[in-house]
Amino acid sequence: MNRILDGEKIVLGVCYYPEHWTKEDWEPDLRKMKENGIEAVRIGEFAWSLVEPEEGKYDFSLFGEFLDTAERYGMKVIMGTPTATPPAWLTGRYPEVLNADIQGNRFHHGGRRHYNYNSPKYRELCCGIVEKYAEHYAKHPAVIGWQIDNELNCETCLFYSESDNLAFREFVKKKYSSLKELNEAWGTVFWSQTYSDWEEVSIPKYMNTDAVNPHLQLDYIRFISQSACEFAKLQADILRRYVKEGDFITTNGIFANVDYLRMKKESLDFLTYDSYPNFAYGLDGFDAEDVMKDRKWSRNLTEVRAVSGRFGIMEQQSGANGWNTRMEAPAPRPGQMTLWTMQSIAHGADFVSYFRFRTATVGTEMYWHGILDYSGRDNRRLAELKKISGLTEKIREAAGSAYEAKAALVRDYDNMWDAGLDKWHERVDRVSVRGIFEAAQLSHTPLDFVYLDENTRLETLQKYQVLFYPHAVILSKERMALLEQYVAQGGVLVMGCRTGYKDKNGRCVREYLPGQARKLTGTDVTEYSFVAPDEGKILVNWDEEELEAAVFTDSLAPIGDAKVLGTYQNSYLKGEPGLICNAYGKGKAYYFGGAFNRETAEVFLKKLGVSEPYAETVKLPACCELAVRRKGETAYFFLLNYAKEPQKVFFETPVKNLYTGETISGSYTLEGYGTLVAVKN
Amino acid sequence: MNRILDGEKIVLGVCYYPEHWTKEDWEPDLRKMKENGIEAVRIGEFAWSLVEPEEGKYDFSLFGEFLDTAERYGMKVIMGTPTATPPAWLTGRYPEVLNADIQGNRFHHGGRRHYNYNSPKYRELCCGIVEKYAEHYAKHPAVIGWQIDNELNCETCLFYSESDNLAFREFVKKKYSSLKELNEAWGTVFWSQTYSDWEEVSIPKYMNTDAVNPHLQLDYIRFISQSACEFAKLQADILRRYVKEGDFITTNGIFANVDYLRMKKESLDFLTYDSYPNFAYGLDGFDAEDVMKDRKWSRNLTEVRAVSGRFGIMEQQSGANGWNTRMEAPAPRPGQMTLWTMQSIAHGADFVSYFRFRTATVGTEMYWHGILDYSGRDNRRLAELKKISGLTEKIREAAGSAYEAKAALVRDYDNMWDAGLDKWHERVDRVSVRGIFEAAQLSHTPLDFVYLDENTRLETLQKYQVLFYPHAVILSKERMALLEQYVAQGGVLVMGCRTGYKDKNGRCVREYLPGQARKLTGTDVTEYSFVAPDEGKILVNWDEEELEAAVFTDSLAPIGDAKVLGTYQNSYLKGEPGLICNAYGKGKAYYFGGAFNRETAEVFLKKLGVSEPYAETVKLPACCELAVRRKGETAYFFLLNYAKEPQKVFFETPVKNLYTGETISGSYTLEGYGTLVAVKN
Amino acid sequence: MNRILDGEKIVLGVCYYPEHWTKEDWEPDLRKMKENGIEAVRIGEFAWSLVEPEEGKYDFSLFGEFLDTAERYGMKVIMGTPTATPPAWLTGRYPEVLNADIQGNRFHHGGRRHYNYNSPKYRELCCGIVEKYAEHYAKHPAVIGWQIDNELNCETCLFYSESDNLAFREFVKKKYSSLKELNEAWGTVFWSQTYSDWEEVSIPKYMNTDAVNPHLQLDYIRFISQSACEFAKLQADILRRYVKEGDFITTNGIFANVDYLRMKKESLDFLTYDSYPNFAYGLDGFDAEDVMKDRKWSRNLTEVRAVSGRFGIMEQQSGANGWNTRMEAPAPRPGQMTLWTMQSIAHGADFVSYFRFRTATVGTEMYWHGILDYSGRDNRRLAELKKISGLTEKIREAAGSAYEAKAALVRDYDNMWDAGLDKWHERVDRVSVRGIFEAAQLSHTPLDFVYLDENTRLETLQKYQVLFYPHAVILSKERMALLEQYVAQGGVLVMGCRTGYKDKNGRCVREYLPGQARKLTGTDVTEYSFVAPDEGKILVNWDEEELEAAVFTDSLAPIGDAKVLGTYQNSYLKGEPGLICNAYGKGKAYYFGGAFNRETAEVFLKKLGVSEPYAETVKLPACCELAVRRKGETAYFFLLNYAKEPQKVFFETPVKNLYTGETISGSYTLEGYGTLVAVKN
Repeated sequence: MNRILDGEKIVLGVCYYPEHWTKEDWEPDLRKMKENGIEAVRIGEFAWSLVEPEEGKYDFSLFGEFLDTAERYGMKVIMGTPTATPPAWLTGRYPEVLNADIQGNRFHHGGRRHYNYNSPKYRELCCGIVEKYAEHYAKHPAVIGWQIDNELNCETCLFYSESDNLAFREFVKKKYSSLKELNEAWGTVFWSQTYSDWEEVSIPKYMNTDAVNPHLQLDYIRFISQSACEFAKLQADILRRYVKEGDFITTNGIFANVDYLRMKKESLDFLTYDSYPNFAYGLDGFDAEDVMKDRKWSRNLTEVRAVSGRFGIMEQQSGANGWNTRMEAPAPRPGQMTLWTMQSIAHGADFVSYFRFRTATVGTEMYWHGILDYSGRDNRRLAELKKISGLTEKIREAAGSAYEAKAALVRDYDNMWDAGLDKWHERVDRVSVRGIFEAAQLSHTPLDFVYLDENTRLETLQKYQVLFYPHAVILSKERMALLEQYVAQGGVLVMGCRTGYKDKNGRCVREYLPGQARKLTGTDVTEYSFVAPDEGKILVNWDEEELEAAVFTDSLAPIGDAKVLGTYQNSYLKGEPGLICNAYGKGKAYYFGGAFNRETAEVFLKKLGVSEPYAETVKLPACCELAVRRKGETAYFFLLNYAKEPQKVFFETPVKNLYTGETISGSYTLEGYGTLVAVKN
Repeated sequence: MNRILDGEKIVLGVCYYPEHWTKEDWEPDLRKMKENGIEAVRIGEFAWSLVEPEEGKYDFSLFGEFLDTAERYGMKVIMGTPTATPPAWLTGRYPEVLNADIQGNRFHHGGRRHYNYNSPKYRELCCGIVEKYAEHYAKHPAVIGWQIDNELNCETCLFYSESDNLAFREFVKKKYSSLKELNEAWGTVFWSQTYSDWEEVSIPKYMNTDAVNPHLQLDYIRFISQSACEFAKLQADILRRYVKEGDFITTNGIFANVDYLRMKKESLDFLTYDSYPNFAYGLDGFDAEDVMKDRKWSRNLTEVRAVSGRFGIMEQQSGANGWNTRMEAPAPRPGQMTLWTMQSIAHGADFVSYFRFRTATVGTEMYWHGILDYSGRDNRRLAELKKISGLTEKIREAAGSAYEAKAALVRDYDNMWDAGLDKWHERVDRVSVRGIFEAAQLSHTPLDFVYLDENTRLETLQKYQVLFYPHAVILSKERMALLEQYVAQGGVLVMGCRTGYKDKNGRCVREYLPGQARKLTGTDVTEYSFVAPDEGKILVNWDEEELEAAVFTDSLAPIGDAKVLGTYQNSYLKGEPGLICNAYGKGKAYYFGGAFNRETAEVFLKKLGVSEPYAETVKLPACCELAVRRKGETAYFFLLNYAKEPQKVFFETPVKNLYTGETISGSYTLEGYGTLVAVKN
Repeated sequence: MNRILDGEKIVLGVCYYPEHWTKEDWEPDLRKMKENGIEAVRIGEFAWSLVEPEEGKYDFSLFGEFLDTAERYGMKVIMGTPTATPPAWLTGRYPEVLNADIQGNRFHHGGRRHYNYNSPKYRELCCGIVEKYAEHYAKHPAVIGWQIDNELNCETCLFYSESDNLAFREFVKKKYSSLKELNEAWGTVFWSQTYSDWEEVSIPKYMNTDAVNPHLQLDYIRFISQSACEFAKLQADILRRYVKEGDFITTNGIFANVDYLRMKKESLDFLTYDSYPNFAYGLDGFDAEDVMKDRKWSRNLTEVRAVSGRFGIMEQQSGANGWNTRMEAPAPRPGQMTLWTMQSIAHGADFVSYFRFRTATVGTEMYWHGILDYSGRDNRRLAELKKISGLTEKIREAAGSAYEAKAALVRDYDNMWDAGLDKWHERVDRVSVRGIFEAAQLSHTPLDFVYLDENTRLETLQKYQVLFYPHAVILSKERMALLEQYVAQGGVLVMGCRTGYKDKNGRCVREYLPGQARKLTGTDVTEYSFVAPDEGKILVNWDEEELEAAVFTDSLAPIGDAKVLGTYQNSYLKGEPGLICNAYGKGKAYYFGGAFNRETAEVFLKKLGVSEPYAETVKLPACCELAVRRKGETAYFFLLNYAKEPQKVFFETPVKNLYTGETISGSYTLEGYGTLVAVKN
């Protein structure tokens, strides 16, 4: 157990940049943090040029002095390694460390993450600075843990430098024993793409059309993920040699093209997340029709929890956001800082660190506001922090409890990455993941995500009564065997259109569809098409309900004893089966011909008996989220009102309001943006 | 006469990729083709690396073996030359063969058509492989013809490699005897563009604004067309030396920046076309307001017919389409494969080859579905093919007949290319070509396109009672002389705004407008403007009718005896002439001040007496197309219902239903997507 | 006094390109100009390759001959230096003179302004040609003045060549005594941007995100402005040595990233402007909702007047516009040429030169129509010119009078440039400048712009009763002192949200906000946010009125005796002060928490007593503009009807119609697009 996720209490922190302020600012700032409930600060992650102002010349004094000061104030410090922002001298002297666009145009100094993971020189220089950081700061008593780099794969998740090209060639040489095997795996017979020399094999390069071989592309994304994981591991391996016992190593996510299961396993004690729910009300892409808005961050938190059961929030929004050029988000309204903090905790975070204590007066992120504005004067948000720290103290017994869900959405990186490359896959994936998440949220059905990899064990799945694996496009024999076991032993598995039509390389299989899933689902897919834009809604009946087959329609036929539960109600598919259920061992597998939008997913949750599992305890309006964390026999109910207006909830059984200690029963009003943590023993 | 357009029967074919499947797949596939009416397959057009896996090392066995197998099954084979997709070793070793974007960024291996036509090295290598293909396969008894490359100018119709630059310089050196002449032709006095050395002359290059000299640009498009034509001719000249008597040479179109009149004359026995009407229902740019949708492909077929009276369909859509990245089109609905096949035949194709027999399991086009899906199992679309082959057998007597039209739309490449470069030209051209086509379609007025070039003879024009030459912006004395003859001898010519204001170089003329057309039209254009966006519809009366002067308004005055038929009814032009008719010899020329949208064109067709010429035989609702093919005294009526719902038509005189042999008279119902071929002797 | 702005009469001119026509065209053209009231022509500005066809080889004959001819016709000539369009030989031989995009792709020959200002070679060659032009033409009696280059910073206002990079480095070296100072000024401590060697410092370069350091960026824009100013000065200094007494030097604007105050001071006798109001009715971005449309050009003219009290129009729209690729504007409707000419004169131009006498038949701008079309025949627009020249003769006594305004909008280049880089700043600036301008226009409140720089004197401000300085984001002590003096001595100053939060480097200040403006405004800004997109209108009351706090909301508190005039009426800010007034000396300062949209600005104008100052003389509908020019005791009233329909105005006191000499009193009808100039002694 480490010192911020110790299962004993909820810890609040802030990000802070000692180098942005004068040394005279530090003590008043630290004092103000402490007075308002802050116990930890993250520092150092963008300060390479400060610590190594010239190549090989170091100055550790500034952070050393800050650590001493922090220690005096009893403040715990998380050190960030500074590799996201190499110094100007570094990229100037070694331009090969820079990433480039697909046309080969190199990026330049001044931003973040403009480097590539595969430059031997950059790896060498990073190992150097990380070792120096570790040598000088790891033993300091104020330090409690480390953050590797900052937001790996943020800003850019594609890499086109020559180092990446060479590394990718090695990656595929290792993966495929011969060019023949590679040609087969990538289907290079198509369009005369066959490689006859390893030197011809490269990362995706600029073409006259967006027609990069999709199988190559899938390996390229795997390669990027591996590059990020290796880069994190390089640093973790160094840090492990220096950290004090009990100190942790983490990094902050989540970004595209990274296998966080692997990264966590190889390098991290736990993952942290950067949570900015007010982007939902920002100027870039505000969607008035979206019923989720800031509540959508619950989905992100569900993803983090899926890859790192224990996790923290490294950056929790506490002010208006934005660069000077884009990404504008307004200031949180009164109550929203509290709401979002409780949202993070409800989903399992026992550490919540705000970005950032003070707002920088310079640079691209001078509108990325922290708690305090440029002057550092006390303000409304600081006052709200003080109240939050009072509440987290009240609910400290909930620390160490775990989020509870009876249903889960199954995901895996191969399919997520394939969906990122393949519009046909992407369209069904996007609709279903959103639809299932929203259906669960609005019906107060706590939901987990489960990320499958080769290490996933049956027990992990057996925690759930119902699993949705909506579009397992890529489906291996091994994965299928696990799912068959799950169903055979009593589980309920729901699959949707497009299941099983690709292999690990993203090639379409020649077997009858849904390929590997035929046996379990008892379903034969005889034809298929996406829904034409003039078609309107295509419906499938299920008893008294009508489900929309969103985006896509598989034409189905039952195999063996499988039972047709629903048929298409309109379009030229009218009368053909659209929903099939197959009893398999003690459980059941369902195959649905379309994608799952919210309304469709709601029917599934209800029909499968997992909807609204806590209705006997509390009833809430749709605009409020219910999350439950459990520790042994004790269930902690988190009620979160995302609406501006007060909302009435109703407790069917008495519970204890942890904020006040009072017992609540029957009707209770949550203020606008209000939260409640109640306990039921 | 060749073996697929022999005037004796309608031939069905498929595209097939022996290299995508195992040899064990071939025989069952060929058997299934034959059983379902397929008589021809196209193969080989993307297989360079298969036949020449290393430079100068050849392996002809795979296609040789396939040809032998095909022969055993009585299957005719069309061989494609593989030059659209050079092998990886080729572009790796000779990067100068690659095309580039306007900034000079070269394209890379993996796609199609990433080469340039003018690289001497690429020409040499192409001649090599084509000769090898021809040597080995041309004499094979199964082979009946050849396709050159694949879809020349598809994907990219602009070329910016250094080879193109050098070839362009030679092109203009040949065209202009001196720099002085070039400077004059291109109007380089403007903006100090004058060239003082040939070395300064180049293809369009990257600039700070989109301000490439438009006269240079026009020559550049002519150069591209010539490059494509020369490239096709290089191959045709080799193939001619090898092909068996009766075997044909074709290529598949139609794409931008190619003069198909020239290409056909120089290199092809006939042109083939790739017809994908379901793009109309695809995700990229579905237009719910468009009344044409898949029927718009009748316009494309009209274009093909205009450049190649006899033609075939090399790729007829038979499944859902799309790359993994874009261009998604859904699966044809039941009946649509038949509808689109009959649409092709109605417009003159006696050969229809589906793309493709089986859907590839790999690569960018794995969603470009053929008749069979990945597994190769029998399916709905195969069953529809079987029915189609029954129908084409029933209508075999229609083979060799010719599409019949009394009105035509006149086009020429100079003006089409100029419209592509010039927004002022493009706006009127787009509206009028679409408007006239739609007006003809919806009023069941069969329409031809006529492409003028220097070889066009008066007889070609005299087939038509009425010619629309809506915006002959570029108009030469020679062209005008031909049109004057046409009218003098009784023809009716309709011209619209913007006629005659440019010369061959795209320079505006100093003569009073409409320049060369003043005499024939008896019209003086005194001023002009496009219609301002706040103006609403500007109307011109014509007897009891009101015509919209779409997009543009020429202010007109009659010359000599020309008669003002209509005046502007509103805007500041109110009261000025907007439509003038000039009697000229035995015919008449009309000048209309605007562009011809659908409603305006409908009035012209009606007023000029060419609308609905078969009304005495059959009446159809607007959503059905009527096409008539004639052979001697026999007229074949093709009725095509593009609507999902059944439609009633009415035969005023009895006809014979060729599908059934029955006589039809009076009311008859076309099913949704239904077709009928009826004969009237 | 020069010969076109002599205060004695209104002079009409045209742009003309002798090189586009035959010498035989010149005399008829000059004769036609004279007959229709043209007294001046501009020539020569795109003719470098004509005068220097090869490097160092000159041919002055064509323009020499034209000047002689012009002299014979009594035509005054303005010579343009030809540096906007270098010859092909020049950019071919010295590619380093070319500008590039941020990725380093060089621009090529054929357009305009593809050069960079900082290439030593280009400067040398420009000095050469300018000196040659001056030597040969400056003494010619027909010549009356010079235009430097053409539309500096048009097309491209960003520069990325290596010459620019080197010059920028020198610029910052000169500005900052040390790297330490530069690092401090640019806040490079953020994201490890610190420079350790001058060689690392560069112009903005291609990055993986749009995250160029905003302080560097601000200096870069200053550098661009300086580059343009220096380039103009290079030429002006040469020309001054040659021009005849009384001949003037000007250039034509206005374009981005130029400090015209500086350029005028250093190099120009006065500025000219290129006015194309019909872009408002063009195809690119026509906005049906915009109430201003062509009237928006009054704002542009106000800007020109602000930087150059005396000014002319070098290019006044006289026909349809557009390149062949974009920027299409329709032909002016009957009356609009007159309207826009009078609009220019109303705002202070005593010289109006039309672009262009004849429309070029070649090149990218062949649709940029002049008065005459390609044939040169007499037309409607020439007839309108003739009438205009009659009117300008009638109102000649108004020449030399000055535009009169009691309210002004204060602007400065630092804040304009910062707004161009900073979306948060830009959003409030755009709304307020537009809102205040439109409110003034629609309420017939003549308005000036005042551009502040270090030379601005108190007297300049004291001309105005009320100043709006809506978002003085960057605010120095010196600037504030001037404003304090203005208020202390009786002025009224209105400031809005976001005032004073940045220093000269664009860094946020640590002082309590509004920083330097706290004392004068008596306002404390305690928190702030932009208005979230789901918020609706946030209102502030002011007596009986409700003002929208557009875009942004500052939370305010009064300091000392300052008085809260209005509080927020809704949102979470409800009840907080939103408008504060502080009495300061003899005047008052207002601080408003939001941006000023039109409705809000209208309330301010009314409440502050400056709205509709000429209501006792004339009442007009909102769609007509009223401008007043005064000379001594005489006020010239310009009434401009931008509507298509006639409008009634009402004279409360009798005035003399200068067009007719008649006295008008009471009701008077302005025709559609009609104008009137009336005098009141």
